[in-house]
Amino acid sequence: MFRPGMHPVTFVAKDSGPFEIERISAISGDELAFATHLAVHHEPVGLSHPRGAWVLRGVTGHVRYVERAEKTQLDPASPALGRPEATCAALIPIRKSAEWWALPQDERRAIFEQRSRHIADSMKYLPRIARRLYQARELGEHFDFLTWFEFAPEHEAAFDELLAMLRSREEWSFVEREVEIRLRRSRT
Amino acid sequence: MFRPGMHPVTFVAKDSGPFEIERISAISGDELAFATHLAVHHEPVGLSHPRGAWVLRGVTGHVRYVERAEKTQLDPASPALGRPEATCAALIPIRKSAEWWALPQDERRAIFEQRSRHIADSMKYLPRIARRLYQARELGEHFDFLTWFEFAPEHEAAFDELLAMLRSREEWSFVEREVEIRLRRSRT
Repeated sequence: MFRPGMHPVTFVAKDSGPFEIERISAISGDELAFATHLAVHHEPVGLSHPRGAWVLRGVTGHVRYVERAEKTQLDPASPALGRPEATCAALIPIRKSAEWWALPQDERRAIFEQRSRHIADSMKYLPRIARRLYQARELGEHFDFLTWFEFAPEHEAAFDELLAMLRSREEWSFVEREVEIRLRRSRT
Repeated sequence: MFRPGMHPVTFVAKDSGPFEIERISAISGDELAFATHLAVHHEPVGLSHPRGAWVLRGVTGHVRYVERAEKTQLDPASPALGRPEATCAALIPIRKSAEWWALPQDERRAIFEQRSRHIADSMKYLPRIARRLYQARELGEHFDFLTWFEFAPEHEAAFDELLAMLRSREEWSFVEREVEIRLRRSRT
């Protein structure tokens, strides 16, 4: 049922799968249960209920805050997922507060970019860190967004720096739950 | 699973229900099958599959284009649903083109409001016409939005004028499917 360009995803934490879970850290709010592996399903799971320590669903969508001038810079600099050298990954589910969602579009954009520089200051980590944002809020999920990152081991410090930068800004004061799941592609 | 303020909805076309279907018109793209009645379920339907000539699902969400100055005018003027005198209703499912969804936020906003005056020119129909917008795109539905309207019979001409206004503007050139379903609350 999903249209071209909309990619549904289901992340399932379990005891085998293409990614090994190195650690799960609750940054704000409740933890997610530990598991050893993560499976990533890109087909719609529909009625099937995958079993796992936890299951998170999302879908890619259109950009919510990016403007034309930013898109012109972002698109050519953004790497594809699945680069062979990018054996490190992270999944970061986030939930923002009711206060955030009650703000009109111009005020959310001002916090996101004019004051927190989410887009501008993330740009310098491209193309080292590949990123895909999944929307989950409209699906009735507990989290609003699931962000997936991929990078080579030598860029792990840069990734940590990117997370620290985002978390230090005003936008993040609206984040009421955040879990960081660090992963390695399983050797096969 | 849905948070306070997010209202899932399932519209089911069938042979009995609280709304009588007066007519179904395909404005752009394919028709929806005829049925005599419409049921509106506000609880999440989850795994249950309601049977009907057609079933449309959506969920309310945060505002996508409305800015603070507009919200300040809109909120006090917007009537609640379910007014006893508002016995006329309409359900208008819409799907916008891939071209629309590929545009960055600033260009969609410019078409929506600066050039099509969607918010400003709809304002004068308040509080006569009550409106609730449901998002459907992220659910993998065929339509992007389901808009529900309620009004008293004496405001039917105003409602027709509102639709004609919206359809005459640049924003509507991105609408690739639109069906208009006109309804009356069933006498009970």
